[in-house]
Amino acid sequence: MVNQSALDNIFARRSIRRYTDQPVSEAEIKTLLEAAMAAPSASDRRPWHFIVVRQRATLDALAQSHPYAKMLFEAPLCIVPCADPAISEAWWVQDCSAATENILLAATALGLGSVWIGVYPRAERMNAVREVLGIPESIVPLCLIPIGHPAERKQPRTRYDASRIHREQW
Amino acid sequence: MVNQSALDNIFARRSIRRYTDQPVSEAEIKTLLEAAMAAPSASDRRPWHFIVVRQRATLDALAQSHPYAKMLFEAPLCIVPCADPAISEAWWVQDCSAATENILLAATALGLGSVWIGVYPRAERMNAVREVLGIPESIVPLCLIPIGHPAERKQPRTRYDASRIHREQW
Repeated sequence: MVNQSALDNIFARRSIRRYTDQPVSEAEIKTLLEAAMAAPSASDRRPWHFIVVRQRATLDALAQSHPYAKMLFEAPLCIVPCADPAISEAWWVQDCSAATENILLAATALGLGSVWIGVYPRAERMNAVREVLGIPESIVPLCLIPIGHPAERKQPRTRYDASRIHREQW
Repeated sequence: MVNQSALDNIFARRSIRRYTDQPVSEAEIKTLLEAAMAAPSASDRRPWHFIVVRQRATLDALAQSHPYAKMLFEAPLCIVPCADPAISEAWWVQDCSAATENILLAATALGLGSVWIGVYPRAERMNAVREVLGIPESIVPLCLIPIGHPAERKQPRTRYDASRIHREQW
């Protein structure tokens, strides 16, 4: 049995940067975090942490800390996936990226809009986010995920490009 | 409207390492690649390529090239997500990891089993995979994804851990 709704959700996920003022519920936040931590990780080490930001002053400070995060002035929620590289030195970027993608897909499934705002590996962005959120030097903020009820609509799509497919050999 | 089937699919995705001998169809492969290329990428640069391997001799050679890829002796399909770091030097690991997670989730939705086998950043694994598949030095094979009809069952789950959640501040 094909789960067509799950496939549809992958194509429905788009980068949403405008939100209504409706808050995201605690139950929805819990689902997003459960989805994050359902991601695979190398040797099941789970090198991740998640900071949940809902306070307006902190969201505004994050918006000011990053060159491409102005939508946080409007978003009611930001989840900040972080890594502890000491747990999995070789694989933490990949593991935390899979967890981030799961958050975006779970947000879409909940009818929420979200967007992946890159932080690591830009030192100036990492340091600014660390400063706002009190993150220790040993921990890496991977990205920011502003989340809210969407105030813009985008059509489902893939970016399928046959020129990027190779058969049997490069 | 909550897309509960899409949420369920995130929790149903498990690492499946045993497969029947039933082949994966071309239509299914197309869906997996469409899902991969529906992933977000920094500045929409899409620094990815995908090698689709179905020939038994090549699958066996990949199985022999990697210390943890013995399931490829049994799998009818391997997708190898690769990156061209020249397209997006800072972000290619994250972008290709999101595409990889989309492939795993699309496989689950299609009733297929799959598993993420790490290659990058281990030089000996990258070189061995490059040799088998004729991948140039400028291109990085991120991981191997063996895929097939599952010959083992695992229950849905999250690895939710409240100790990894921080509120407002680290």
